[in-house]
Amino acid sequence: MPNESYVVGVDVGGTKVAAGLVNAGGEIIKHARTPMVATGSAASGLAAVNAAIQQVLEGTSDRKITAIGICSPGPLDPKTGVVINPPNLPCWRNFPLADEVQALHKVPVKVDNDANAAALAEVKWGAGRGYKNVFYGTVGTGIGTGIIFDGRIYHGRTGAAAEGGHMGIDIHGPRCGCGKKGCVEVLASGPGIARRARQKLASNSNSKVFELAQGNPQHVTSEMVAQAYAVGDPLAREVIEETLDVLAYWLGNIVDLVEPDVIVMGGGVSTMLSPFLEDIRKRWNGMVVNPWPQQIPVVLARYGEDAGVAGAAALCPTN
Amino acid sequence: MPNESYVVGVDVGGTKVAAGLVNAGGEIIKHARTPMVATGSAASGLAAVNAAIQQVLEGTSDRKITAIGICSPGPLDPKTGVVINPPNLPCWRNFPLADEVQALHKVPVKVDNDANAAALAEVKWGAGRGYKNVFYGTVGTGIGTGIIFDGRIYHGRTGAAAEGGHMGIDIHGPRCGCGKKGCVEVLASGPGIARRARQKLASNSNSKVFELAQGNPQHVTSEMVAQAYAVGDPLAREVIEETLDVLAYWLGNIVDLVEPDVIVMGGGVSTMLSPFLEDIRKRWNGMVVNPWPQQIPVVLARYGEDAGVAGAAALCPTN
Repeated sequence: MPNESYVVGVDVGGTKVAAGLVNAGGEIIKHARTPMVATGSAASGLAAVNAAIQQVLEGTSDRKITAIGICSPGPLDPKTGVVINPPNLPCWRNFPLADEVQALHKVPVKVDNDANAAALAEVKWGAGRGYKNVFYGTVGTGIGTGIIFDGRIYHGRTGAAAEGGHMGIDIHGPRCGCGKKGCVEVLASGPGIARRARQKLASNSNSKVFELAQGNPQHVTSEMVAQAYAVGDPLAREVIEETLDVLAYWLGNIVDLVEPDVIVMGGGVSTMLSPFLEDIRKRWNGMVVNPWPQQIPVVLARYGEDAGVAGAAALCPTN
Repeated sequence: MPNESYVVGVDVGGTKVAAGLVNAGGEIIKHARTPMVATGSAASGLAAVNAAIQQVLEGTSDRKITAIGICSPGPLDPKTGVVINPPNLPCWRNFPLADEVQALHKVPVKVDNDANAAALAEVKWGAGRGYKNVFYGTVGTGIGTGIIFDGRIYHGRTGAAAEGGHMGIDIHGPRCGCGKKGCVEVLASGPGIARRARQKLASNSNSKVFELAQGNPQHVTSEMVAQAYAVGDPLAREVIEETLDVLAYWLGNIVDLVEPDVIVMGGGVSTMLSPFLEDIRKRWNGMVVNPWPQQIPVVLARYGEDAGVAGAAALCPTN
């Protein structure tokens, strides 16, 4: 298909850069990955990004590349493509990432944060397709969210909106890495699930989770909780039930405030909990004031590991 | 000013209808009020609304009325002006309020819920003027909220969005009248403030609040807490500090999710707390992940008691 056009999606993280060649249907037809040089100069960070783009472009010379989209940790300005001061990317301080990449590759470049971009990919090509207003949550090591209104990313005043993973839902709860008490992230992310399991193990070591962690509660992961749940372990069941209640309470808040057309859930924990995602709506009984919450589907995202690359690509116009 | 044009704003409640003649600057130049007949037939409910409108129109025949705006309790459909099934207005079930009033008065009629409408009045004529994205909260007997994006009310999927007063922030907290645990409404509304004061009085009757309630904790109101605070009562101080922390935690969530340009606070409790509204932003330290929360003003609303009438008027085009 030498005449088909493509965009390059680039997902910049603190330790690696992933990139992909993405077609108009949102399929990632080629993948690349390079280490990120996050602590060096701005130029060495840019070089790492560029290396990933070059890998994708190699041997694709007969394909038309129309644009490059990039996800980066924030704060950043999605209007100008300037990366402001991400804690995990010390190399970039007020760095004009979009302009720099555009100068190198002579195509339009868009920059946004990963959860916003992933939300857009779901609307364009994934589980949010056909909906105007979409709430996207990715639950994994952390919890990120993106909001799509009328088919476009909702940015707020500066581009820092849609940080729904740090919505506080337990004002007296444990403190999150962000400094706030009782964010949904500290309660229901992978590490949050593991922490709650560990707490329960302190008073009950007679659990499959304890066995899977080889007797060391510090080794407990959310995956072990899921494995133990699968074989009927009561402690694991308690932890999973709590997790679903926390997610339902949080998403109930989203329903009442945002009333989206659909809720799309991505990330490793969502995948692990995918058999129960539909059931979250049952838990909304007595948790939402919206009169028709059952009309809002809660569905698994199309994109998993590739959400960042697909999201970055979704930032660009495709045809 | 016989040639100036006006709109009529109508605020329908469970027990009364307030109406006003509103000019292009958002001033309410004439007020009216009738009892609401909420439990009778649909027609008697309509007649009560119409009586209030007639009162406003009396003697204003030389003034041009261009439209009528109405706030009603929801659920309602702001697109069609149909009131669906408000719990406190049993008279109206799928009642085409906009069409009925339009048929009587031959001018365009708009219907929306009170907090949405009040938010719009603040953007058009009040403390939100000059801002595009505004979060409005009214804290009184309950907590209502409205969200303005790009100068327009954000309605969500069906018009039931922006119920921020029922955002749950204390998953293990006291149950709200809505059925949910730990809504900001159950914690920080007037009755929520009184309830927390009562709880503290149980273990400490040596407080000015106790005296103001004439020794009966059941008589405690949020106003008594404010009065006791004003004379340095330690228990009242504790209750007010808690209230501000709750409001800061809640508004911190709003900053992180919505990142509005400004937060406008209305209602009796906000007025009572107005000396501290600015300080809410100081409490955001360690409560928000947004990098620039201090750039978001927290200000008192222009409209108090009249927020519903002004809001209803704001639903209509004025010039």
